[in-house]
Amino acid sequence: MKVTALSGGVGGARMLRGLAALEDVELTAIVNTGDDETIYGLRVSPDIDTVIYTLADKQGPQGWGLADDSHRVIEALEKFPLETWFRIGDGDLATNLFRTARLQAGWTLSQVTTAQAAVFGVKATVLPVSDEPIRTEVHLEDEGWLSFQTYFVDRQHRGRVDDVRFSGAWAATPAPGVLAALREADLVVIGPSNPPLSVWPMLAVDGIADAVADARSVVGVSPLIGGRAIKGPADKVMEGLGLPPGTAGVLQAYDGLLHELIVDSADADDAEGDWGEVRVRALPTRISEVEAATALANQIVQFR
Amino acid sequence: MKVTALSGGVGGARMLRGLAALEDVELTAIVNTGDDETIYGLRVSPDIDTVIYTLADKQGPQGWGLADDSHRVIEALEKFPLETWFRIGDGDLATNLFRTARLQAGWTLSQVTTAQAAVFGVKATVLPVSDEPIRTEVHLEDEGWLSFQTYFVDRQHRGRVDDVRFSGAWAATPAPGVLAALREADLVVIGPSNPPLSVWPMLAVDGIADAVADARSVVGVSPLIGGRAIKGPADKVMEGLGLPPGTAGVLQAYDGLLHELIVDSADADDAEGDWGEVRVRALPTRISEVEAATALANQIVQFR
Repeated sequence: MKVTALSGGVGGARMLRGLAALEDVELTAIVNTGDDETIYGLRVSPDIDTVIYTLADKQGPQGWGLADDSHRVIEALEKFPLETWFRIGDGDLATNLFRTARLQAGWTLSQVTTAQAAVFGVKATVLPVSDEPIRTEVHLEDEGWLSFQTYFVDRQHRGRVDDVRFSGAWAATPAPGVLAALREADLVVIGPSNPPLSVWPMLAVDGIADAVADARSVVGVSPLIGGRAIKGPADKVMEGLGLPPGTAGVLQAYDGLLHELIVDSADADDAEGDWGEVRVRALPTRISEVEAATALANQIVQFR
Repeated sequence: MKVTALSGGVGGARMLRGLAALEDVELTAIVNTGDDETIYGLRVSPDIDTVIYTLADKQGPQGWGLADDSHRVIEALEKFPLETWFRIGDGDLATNLFRTARLQAGWTLSQVTTAQAAVFGVKATVLPVSDEPIRTEVHLEDEGWLSFQTYFVDRQHRGRVDDVRFSGAWAATPAPGVLAALREADLVVIGPSNPPLSVWPMLAVDGIADAVADARSVVGVSPLIGGRAIKGPADKVMEGLGLPPGTAGVLQAYDGLLHELIVDSADADDAEGDWGEVRVRALPTRISEVEAATALANQIVQFR
């Protein structure tokens, strides 16, 4: 069966790894690029890299970056008068040098990503949501607008987010293959990524929200357990944006898109509620281990 | 005394190291930027880096790059579909990330270079010849025009060069401090760099050749020994461009600029010749060791 999944970084990548492990699943990953930025002159695409590294089972211990990576370059860079809060390993840096060099040579981000997936032996199709720039920015109550990476990495997602925007998204078009992958999918999965910060930027690209809404079957996976994000600021951001807490907030964030929402077993009570046309199903959603991710994926693809 | 030296890469940097070792010498290095290029998206300035690393006594075994550098990133990059003939060490990469990041943030190359020299504890003033882009290109008889790095690194300076050009040089202006350093110098030294490929691009910048011609005392150091370059293609390039071999070729390359030319002791016969207004003096010019460089520098600064 054809499965197309929308993914942000770590959580979404783990869901993809589970889906990729299933036989008879032809997987296409559509990946958020709202976190992309130019760092030290290099074009970084953190979610694409996290997805590819995780699908290759080479992700770092925190879920991002490469396993067993060294940090020679960033350590040398610390001597210079430059902010070095964006720490990047040496192997990861090579990925970003490749991307930067190829983009400068005229390749699209899709082409770069296809080549990168091939280098890492990834069999799934990995597509950036768009080849055109999208930049997620958050508005902190006390500081005003910040780029995603400044908020997320430098500020370690502290501070109250009361608005988000996706610069460029409304003018961007889906990358080649994205709309077809949504249209032709037997199942569309929205992974357990941060709804406002990782999924909304994809939905903001012209045509994507409509294609998801029109898809045959759409299953979302909540990133919250007992109302809290496993890691990252999803719950805080959702609250700051005025969404209801917990499952209700996730459902509101994806209003009109889902046929089913998977919540964690800890939130089994929510599966009893009446959520209108959306079925809520409780399953174990802690999927840092590949076995758990595969078990969850196996349940998800049985949605009819 | 104030000494201002024009320098390309390895040979010029070694001459600078000798001059910097002398007491009572206030040294300004004006450095070629014609070899600069964008590699893997990074702005590389090989001659500036070679000069700073050498003045800091941290140069690599071949004279360029950093001593004891690792190559984690370039080794990781080799997996990707990208030409990786420009091999760069991890520490050296940090220098280039710093330069690229700061240039993108609006710093000039002069500002970047000043900060870089400070990080490496270099006391001499190091100035790029210009903050504006200059690109040395060589015309190979069989291939047409190539960028300097493609010719020098990728092709390992094989092939017959029958023309050179310095794109951007005629529109570039000297970096802040360059003309003053030439005007105020008690002595201007043209280091043992490749005359057409490393020194001409500097002389092509508006006002520099005139400032050298007007300088109080100008001493050049021949890069040739017995008519051959110690390393690099200076002799072949000069021949290809129709310059006479040996000392006569160097003198012609610097026509109208020098008061004295230092040639190697192996070419002592040339010191006997009549070279018009230019005195030719024979001294040991093999200066890969700092002691030899200092001894030569000590002789040079005695020019009156």
